[in-house]
Amino acid sequence: MASAKSEFTVEPWRVRELGLHPGNLAQSESVFALSNGHIGVRGNYDESTPNGLLGTYLNSFYEERPLPYAEAGYGYPEEGQTIVNVTDGKIIRLLVDDQPLDMRYGVVRHQERSLDMREGLLHRDVIWETTAGTQVRIRSTRLVSFTQRAILAIRYSVEAINKPVRIVMQSEMVANERLKVASKDPRVAAALKDPLRPEEHSHTGNRSLLIHRTRRSKLRVAVACDHVIHGEEDFHSNTYVQPDWTRTTVGTELQPGETVGLTKFVAYGWSSQRTLPALRDQVDAALSAVLHTGWDNLVAEQRSYLDEFWDGADVEVDGDPAIQQAVRFGLWHVLQSGARAEGRAIPAKGLTGPGYDGHCFWDSEMYVLPVLTATAPQAARDAISWRLSIAELAAERAQTLKLKGVAFPWRTIRGQECSAYWPAGTAAFHVNAAIAVSAARYVFWTQDEEFDKEIALPLLVQTARLWADLGYHGDDGRFHIDGVTGPDEYSAIVDDNVYTNLMAARNLRYAAEAAERWPKAAKELKVTESERADWWAAVETIAVPYDSDKDVHMQDADFTQHRVWDFEETLKDDGYPLLLHYPYVDIYPKQVVKQADLILAMHWCGDEFTPEQKARAFEYYEAVTCRDSSLSACTQAVIAAEVGQVELAHDYATEAALMDLHNLEHNTGDGVHVASLAGAWLALVCGFGGMRDHHGQLSFAPTLPEKIQRLAFTLRWQGCKIRVEVTHERTIYQLEDGPDAHVPIKHYGRKFTLRSGKTASKATKPPKPLTPRPKQPVGREPIRAGSGG
Amino acid sequence: MASAKSEFTVEPWRVRELGLHPGNLAQSESVFALSNGHIGVRGNYDESTPNGLLGTYLNSFYEERPLPYAEAGYGYPEEGQTIVNVTDGKIIRLLVDDQPLDMRYGVVRHQERSLDMREGLLHRDVIWETTAGTQVRIRSTRLVSFTQRAILAIRYSVEAINKPVRIVMQSEMVANERLKVASKDPRVAAALKDPLRPEEHSHTGNRSLLIHRTRRSKLRVAVACDHVIHGEEDFHSNTYVQPDWTRTTVGTELQPGETVGLTKFVAYGWSSQRTLPALRDQVDAALSAVLHTGWDNLVAEQRSYLDEFWDGADVEVDGDPAIQQAVRFGLWHVLQSGARAEGRAIPAKGLTGPGYDGHCFWDSEMYVLPVLTATAPQAARDAISWRLSIAELAAERAQTLKLKGVAFPWRTIRGQECSAYWPAGTAAFHVNAAIAVSAARYVFWTQDEEFDKEIALPLLVQTARLWADLGYHGDDGRFHIDGVTGPDEYSAIVDDNVYTNLMAARNLRYAAEAAERWPKAAKELKVTESERADWWAAVETIAVPYDSDKDVHMQDADFTQHRVWDFEETLKDDGYPLLLHYPYVDIYPKQVVKQADLILAMHWCGDEFTPEQKARAFEYYEAVTCRDSSLSACTQAVIAAEVGQVELAHDYATEAALMDLHNLEHNTGDGVHVASLAGAWLALVCGFGGMRDHHGQLSFAPTLPEKIQRLAFTLRWQGCKIRVEVTHERTIYQLEDGPDAHVPIKHYGRKFTLRSGKTASKATKPPKPLTPRPKQPVGREPIRAGSGG
Repeated sequence: MASAKSEFTVEPWRVRELGLHPGNLAQSESVFALSNGHIGVRGNYDESTPNGLLGTYLNSFYEERPLPYAEAGYGYPEEGQTIVNVTDGKIIRLLVDDQPLDMRYGVVRHQERSLDMREGLLHRDVIWETTAGTQVRIRSTRLVSFTQRAILAIRYSVEAINKPVRIVMQSEMVANERLKVASKDPRVAAALKDPLRPEEHSHTGNRSLLIHRTRRSKLRVAVACDHVIHGEEDFHSNTYVQPDWTRTTVGTELQPGETVGLTKFVAYGWSSQRTLPALRDQVDAALSAVLHTGWDNLVAEQRSYLDEFWDGADVEVDGDPAIQQAVRFGLWHVLQSGARAEGRAIPAKGLTGPGYDGHCFWDSEMYVLPVLTATAPQAARDAISWRLSIAELAAERAQTLKLKGVAFPWRTIRGQECSAYWPAGTAAFHVNAAIAVSAARYVFWTQDEEFDKEIALPLLVQTARLWADLGYHGDDGRFHIDGVTGPDEYSAIVDDNVYTNLMAARNLRYAAEAAERWPKAAKELKVTESERADWWAAVETIAVPYDSDKDVHMQDADFTQHRVWDFEETLKDDGYPLLLHYPYVDIYPKQVVKQADLILAMHWCGDEFTPEQKARAFEYYEAVTCRDSSLSACTQAVIAAEVGQVELAHDYATEAALMDLHNLEHNTGDGVHVASLAGAWLALVCGFGGMRDHHGQLSFAPTLPEKIQRLAFTLRWQGCKIRVEVTHERTIYQLEDGPDAHVPIKHYGRKFTLRSGKTASKATKPPKPLTPRPKQPVGREPIRAGSGG
Repeated sequence: MASAKSEFTVEPWRVRELGLHPGNLAQSESVFALSNGHIGVRGNYDESTPNGLLGTYLNSFYEERPLPYAEAGYGYPEEGQTIVNVTDGKIIRLLVDDQPLDMRYGVVRHQERSLDMREGLLHRDVIWETTAGTQVRIRSTRLVSFTQRAILAIRYSVEAINKPVRIVMQSEMVANERLKVASKDPRVAAALKDPLRPEEHSHTGNRSLLIHRTRRSKLRVAVACDHVIHGEEDFHSNTYVQPDWTRTTVGTELQPGETVGLTKFVAYGWSSQRTLPALRDQVDAALSAVLHTGWDNLVAEQRSYLDEFWDGADVEVDGDPAIQQAVRFGLWHVLQSGARAEGRAIPAKGLTGPGYDGHCFWDSEMYVLPVLTATAPQAARDAISWRLSIAELAAERAQTLKLKGVAFPWRTIRGQECSAYWPAGTAAFHVNAAIAVSAARYVFWTQDEEFDKEIALPLLVQTARLWADLGYHGDDGRFHIDGVTGPDEYSAIVDDNVYTNLMAARNLRYAAEAAERWPKAAKELKVTESERADWWAAVETIAVPYDSDKDVHMQDADFTQHRVWDFEETLKDDGYPLLLHYPYVDIYPKQVVKQADLILAMHWCGDEFTPEQKARAFEYYEAVTCRDSSLSACTQAVIAAEVGQVELAHDYATEAALMDLHNLEHNTGDGVHVASLAGAWLALVCGFGGMRDHHGQLSFAPTLPEKIQRLAFTLRWQGCKIRVEVTHERTIYQLEDGPDAHVPIKHYGRKFTLRSGKTASKATKPPKPLTPRPKQPVGREPIRAGSGG
């Protein structure tokens, strides 16, 4: 995968863009997007234009749209959900003398945009000269608050440099912004054009309000903003509101060296149920609260929130500055995606762009939640609780599919299945296991008993019922699951997908165990002894297809018997990614893997395989994995590290880490790849740290690539913090904070007990690789470590 | 499958409906549809209203429409094709005194509609009384000419019975008739609403003309009609034309016993390329010709054409009058669908209704062409030639699918793939073998060398190339074909579907043999020796999966390892047909068969199986075949007869034969099921006659159910006619007409030579069954023989 040159500086705690990069606008807007999981605003320029793609999102605020089918089938969902670009509250336009500020006109003497991941602020610093030669300096700082979840705030100032100048700042809110059409289908385009029907607009002084409602999904959004003007006493201002926009104008004259500025506070609120007056009051109250807090305190709160986060989450990497920056950038966006989602989904793009229609997929549970569980457990708890909140819809879906239990959606915003492609939307059942296992994992990591009983147990029981109904004991006595689609999207409707089967077995096991822990609650869920016995019987006999001729595990029951894809031909035909150049009928029945699948099973269900099996499978599947998905590199890094291919692991870790900063898949403009960003952490902590948590047993098997001299990371474990510091010689474990505790830990498989306030120092001695460095399909080698430096 | 009571009389050569059956209009319009394969008109009342569904069709005259996708994929076709209801030329309205004739008003004293399959005429005889008590008798006779393919003709007369009466006949042509909307998708509905854009309308005397063109597909249709008035000298007439309609009015007064009438000749012409004046002249010329012929001669030509057809096609059945009628009705519609198609497709519904969008599928080759090859070979020749004419489009499609050779469309009118469901549209490759084998069969039956070289060879070679590219030799040395969809639509994307593999092997074999017969022509097609060697290697090693544990052939590589569908549950839930009540993800991975698949292979590739294997497989698959397709019963009849289950065969033959006369699938209103109608012949000739033609060797293994005392049928074989007459005691073979010939024939596997003008009498001694009568899924037993009597 070729690395695009990044437009961003490499610094430990910041992502900076120097100068103008007009071809790069959409990407940088995603990279610089701010979010707290509730509100998301893309890193558009304050003046709104030019832009790559304007975007302001509220978690779970969507419009419905028809899902058209030329040939419909039973159970195909008829309504889709698409994230809506809501009222844009961040616009501040500027008139300098008689010229509007626009980066395409006049002379940009200087521009720097800078994301500070410790402060949680996006800074911009511009020196601009009008065509008449008048220079001004514009500074803006933007934040989406982690502590006041309804609030977006912008500090904006203009300084005259070389001449007296007339300044007019126009702070606006705009609804129904014109965007590029997302669909060729005129019905879909119509549904998404002007999605917001105005309901109320008003203002008092410089505080203004817009209320809108979506046409089909009937969601109501209220946005209010207010302004504090500073720096000049002699200014004129006024506010004007219309159904689809508001404008607060501040005008003054500046002498060279003088500054005028404004602080804009924007409050968002939405609801499907609450009345218009209730929402109107809600956003006004949020505004009053933040005005009382004031800008400086809001910024201090933000820093303090992040200090606490980084203290339990940071990863230090000595020797690879690009990865050092990238893993923090990854953690930053992972935090942003979930911090204040509070009972809503974590979408694949967070709230950074409209990619994938704003939908949430299984990778939220399999890539993002492991990181949040270890670094910001409350966010993980919220995300899992959201799944329970949509369990009723998932139960209805299971009924439609003629199955017991729950069938969670393959893709959704609100909870209803929105996939129009049935081999994914009805057959990728593994999403259910991902949810169940993430709930069990949360319990392992937190010992949160209330969650265990109230959230995990019902999720585990209902998903277990799906597997028990879906699978069956075959003539060979094994428990088989036929006709499913696993993680690898270049196969579909296969029998006994190993990943699905092993994850289902974990799901069933954890359900049985939870029911045994909470017998009364289980009884309320109608779990019987015989049901539990059925679950255990499935766990104990789960089918795991193995090709004894080739001496390797099969991704599914027939996988290794198929023809191997002709990668040379594909490279010659410029045929990557395959899904854009070959029909499913060509791809599905061949040995070609879009993304880690068996290898993913070897990560998350690694206790089911021997080291030799892992080494052999990794070598075999490397040769047929073309990595057309951003979900693959991090997992390949983890298993590469485990099987001793540590330099290859470094390459994959680099690729996972740089996905968005280097725009490796050329679609970061639609939003960042949250799962891949989480993958940078997974590659470092689970890869080089060798961290595993099988069935709640924390274990490490550290290994470092040559260039990384030191790797240090912190995990939040059962109310404590575990700090791990790895060098090529030693690995030092420390248990901090929390109650007086002792944690049983495995170091290369050997158990020891880590005690509060104590340090344990162990030798770093990874096992030797069992195979030579495996080969990838021609042209699909990972980018090389160090290439992002 | 429950038998609906038929509204039609059971007579050997006629289908008659007595009285009014207002709930049955759409079905009777399909049953009484007249067609010559070029024009098709539904059996609507002359006065057009009331109707079930108005319909006038021209073969391959279609409109394009968008195929919408909520999630599109590589290679999905973007344009569909839908048969268009063209200008309706058959309307004759009647005013009796001041009341319009309408079967819903006044008093219908008598109505009889009668299809005469020897005459090729549809008669109607009505005695109607106005609300004022005036009685008239209306007689109409309608034909679509087999001898003048552009011509529809109607003889219409009115007789006064009890009072003097003013009569006005209005003969009309109407374009863009309002029909029920066929699609919920507004874009599709829009594309099909008023599909005809008027281009010209004119008249001279009582001859009028309408020319229209479709909006998107740009096909032009011209329709002209003229009238001969008879019975009264004192009448007034005039003709009036508008862009979308024409009207010729004939008025007079009748005394009781007097009759007035008109003969209406309608000529149709269409083209995608010819100019408007050319089409205008074409239909005018056709009108002039038929006026010169005159009604009586046109009727005589029709009879003579049909005498010749029936002489070489008729099947006589003593002892089961319902099947006797039904097999002739089936032959009648099969003939109608293909007689004058002349280089166009034979759609699944013929030209009798808009079902399946008017598309042609593989069943044209596998069900209809075997019958036409044996009874009306020229029609078979034309249909196969049509496939060659679209081979270029099929080669483009293969390229899109990254395959060599040709990939014929799963469903189409003009030749482009129109399937929006990729597991059918790109994976049901068996359509290619069906086409290839039908070409080879035609050569076996006719020894037509020109066809062999010019049509069959290129079709065989290009389809063979698809298989050679699609399949591969696995580690076991066998030739495998992975990831295809076979005939059974309750499985998809399977490996080594036995039917597909065996048909592909025949395709490859016949291609290699044809290339050997025509070395020079083969060289022009770039067939090399090594290519032929590859074909033979595939033929000799083709994979045919067998389950040795269960001792039965597998429909595909995994079939018998899957769970068996829960039929009892389905019956309880009123869940048939499955596709309307269960998702694919539930159906595909289970043992449930929509339609004969392995059993179809046992019919058409029967030489590849032993009698024991057939008996065992028939028993096994009967238990999992729910027959949710009209293509199944006839094949089950054929194999039931072969394995000695002759009474069960009689049941299935009855079901296949009565499909449309009894409206067994409740959708005959959309058009008759041509393949199932052909299936009645297959059930009798291949089932009870035991006729096979493997690799050109004609063989018979007669067996009769108890109630059928005698079965006689005629086959056209290499320019001769072979008559076979089976009783429970003897089977008599006769070779007639044609040149002095001798035909090697097998009777129960024993070869003998049948000579021109000679009779061979053999004992009828079918083998005994090897198993008890197999059981079907509960509730899916066939209707019982005799239930249609």
